Amino acid sequence: MSASTATTVPAAIRRWHEVAEARDIAGLNALLADEAVFQSPVVHTPQVGKAITARYLTAAFQVLNNGHFRYRNEWFGPNSAVLEFETVVDGIEVNGVDIITWDASDRIVNFKVMIRPLKAINMVFEHMRATLTAMSA
Amino acid sequence: MSASTATTVPAAIRRWHEVAEARDIAGLNALLADEAVFQSPVVHTPQVGKAITARYLTAAFQVLNNGHFRYRNEWFGPNSAVLEFETVVDGIEVNGVDIITWDASDRIVNFKVMIRPLKAINMVFEHMRATLTAMSA
Repeated sequence: MSASTATTVPAAIRRWHEVAEARDIAGLNALLADEAVFQSPVVHTPQVGKAITARYLTAAFQVLNNGHFRYRNEWFGPNSAVLEFETVVDGIEVNGVDIITWDASDRIVNFKVMIRPLKAINMVFEHMRATLTAMSA
Repeated sequence: MSASTATTVPAAIRRWHEVAEARDIAGLNALLADEAVFQSPVVHTPQVGKAITARYLTAAFQVLNNGHFRYRNEWFGPNSAVLEFETVVDGIEVNGVDIITWDASDRIVNFKVMIRPLKAINMVFEHMRATLTAMSA
């Protein structure tokens, strides 16, 4: 990582990239605030709390972070960022955004995901459901 | 609009807000580059060209820009921005992003939309289809 990147990318996002690339579950737990909320592309009701947020993000690592996954663009605000990603799962192109909000301690308090197109949402939903079920077993 | 807003909001986004608030179709056409591309929440294939992009955005004004519509957050990059919106249509809460890219003349070259949750996508898709059909009649 270049010095210029290190100074311009917010600390929470720098950590998120490290955690996502390594699928680092301990690092993920350290990065999430206790009151973290996950908002899925599929369901309106927010998933409230660090445990359930970590669970969804861990499942997403398995479903989305394959060899095709890459972040293609990023936009930064004072305490939030949008990361646009692309991947291919089951031969279907997936395009989405992670909208990440952090607190004064650079811990993630809100993680919202949107996905397009519709075909990708339906496919990711099925994979997420199967992965979350397998994690519970 | 305050002076500070006027200096920090990119010109293309300032114009987009004016056009969207007024549902100004002539203004929309002036803001779109000839090679503008629209990327829908539903379909993977991009809609290429100013005419079809204007058509989709005009339909979206009718479907989404009702009394409930508001932009709740914005992130700006050098030649692109993400605008997160919320609205309510048919009693269903719609949350989405407009990802807007502009050229050196501040004309919009790419307009991508993502929507969550799934229920909202399906409902907006039906309304968009009906509105586009009515516009063709």
